[in-house]
Amino acid sequence: MTSATDIQRYHTAAVELADEARRIITPALERGFILKTKADRSLVTEVDQAIERRARELIDRWFPDHGVIGEEYPPTRPDSPFQWIIDPIDGTEEFVHGIPTFGTMLALHLRGVPLVGVIDHAALDLRVDAGIGLGAFRNGQRIRLAQAVVDQHAEQVRLALSARINFTRQIDEGRLFETLTRLYPNHRIYRAAYAHTAAVTGAVDAMVDMHNHVWDLAPSRVLIEEAGGVYEVVRDFPAADGARLLSAVFGKAAVVERLVAVFRASPV
Amino acid sequence: MTSATDIQRYHTAAVELADEARRIITPALERGFILKTKADRSLVTEVDQAIERRARELIDRWFPDHGVIGEEYPPTRPDSPFQWIIDPIDGTEEFVHGIPTFGTMLALHLRGVPLVGVIDHAALDLRVDAGIGLGAFRNGQRIRLAQAVVDQHAEQVRLALSARINFTRQIDEGRLFETLTRLYPNHRIYRAAYAHTAAVTGAVDAMVDMHNHVWDLAPSRVLIEEAGGVYEVVRDFPAADGARLLSAVFGKAAVVERLVAVFRASPV
Repeated sequence: MTSATDIQRYHTAAVELADEARRIITPALERGFILKTKADRSLVTEVDQAIERRARELIDRWFPDHGVIGEEYPPTRPDSPFQWIIDPIDGTEEFVHGIPTFGTMLALHLRGVPLVGVIDHAALDLRVDAGIGLGAFRNGQRIRLAQAVVDQHAEQVRLALSARINFTRQIDEGRLFETLTRLYPNHRIYRAAYAHTAAVTGAVDAMVDMHNHVWDLAPSRVLIEEAGGVYEVVRDFPAADGARLLSAVFGKAAVVERLVAVFRASPV
Repeated sequence: MTSATDIQRYHTAAVELADEARRIITPALERGFILKTKADRSLVTEVDQAIERRARELIDRWFPDHGVIGEEYPPTRPDSPFQWIIDPIDGTEEFVHGIPTFGTMLALHLRGVPLVGVIDHAALDLRVDAGIGLGAFRNGQRIRLAQAVVDQHAEQVRLALSARINFTRQIDEGRLFETLTRLYPNHRIYRAAYAHTAAVTGAVDAMVDMHNHVWDLAPSRVLIEEAGGVYEVVRDFPAADGARLLSAVFGKAAVVERLVAVFRASPV
């Protein structure tokens, strides 16, 4: 069991890491930055790398026995029960093209259980953060998700989901994209961290995030649960690079339940 | 022919109307507002209505012989060759739920030809505006769209499109949603004016807007053409309410051409 004092300390650290990320992102948005293409053809910028390096430096200083898993650099101390999980800029494609929905995603997991989580949107001046037992906050204001109406008409459900390209990543579940978009035609696709924040704040009723890396989902469980919603892992595959490819549904309980039933009815 | 001086005057007026809209929206975002449900179950707020009333008042004063078509009130002077077309808040659902992609859409058409257009995003501090022969601007900076690579890999094309619910509005073209999302799996769905702005600024390569009212599309042609892109109407049906239901594809020429070919291959 982790004490409330420790959770508080980790939460403060996570928020400070998000502040640091914003201090790096904001001037870069004004000044411009250098763009690189990774071996897998995905994009990375000097900004992504600078944030992750700075976060690793601070974590090493503050918690020298904690591990770090990040999108841009190899894991450190992979045997530690405490793992900081960092996506310096989720939605690099959005960042590069000036779409403000990108965000910094940060979490601390203890043996796989998220203790604290933050998603920070520098271009939207929007942050959500949470710690187990502390609650979830939107720009410092406590979030308490309203319950969804149980028998809400499907066309009224506001669903955020991954783009179809995620549904066919490694394993082809394109059929599920069709099923979900037919059943819930009032959907949004942001292709970036903002979709998570929208679910955490109740701006959408739920989010379906498909075939993603652990750092794309690391803060979302504690954020949504502390906000009063639910989080369900619906797929968990080994990924080509030896890591895991996760899919999760999260948001208001009544809607998540209906979505999880769609996944159960469509086994891989 | 309309003189450059007149276009300049209309452009100044359109920008002033957008300033007025922002002066109404910004305090409402802080203070909160009253929500209503219209007969067709769509949402409207006192803010939508206040903006449209104020715009109508100013247009009547500045251009007493011009007509006005708006989402919230009946048309005035429908026989005038000059028609101001107003969607006070495109994306009311987003506005109500705190999603910043909503926007005010304004245009002046002369016998159906758009002379000036503005999309203003109060919550993003982002505006695009254009006048025929004046150019298109993003927060005052001239936009010059880069050309898309002609043989760009389909997975690299960044496409914004309407949600599936639009594709089945009145006439069922759901099949086209499936075709487009399979062909171009790197897509975004914003369900609000921001999708248009993303195409105008080149943040996405193109936008497919399906089965929409004239006020949802009124500023987009002049904005995209003055930015250096192209605009094609791909569907034009009579709507149930006696108006028209339009679908358009706009953005970078090479991508629009490929998308228009998909529509040609799928006649209604």
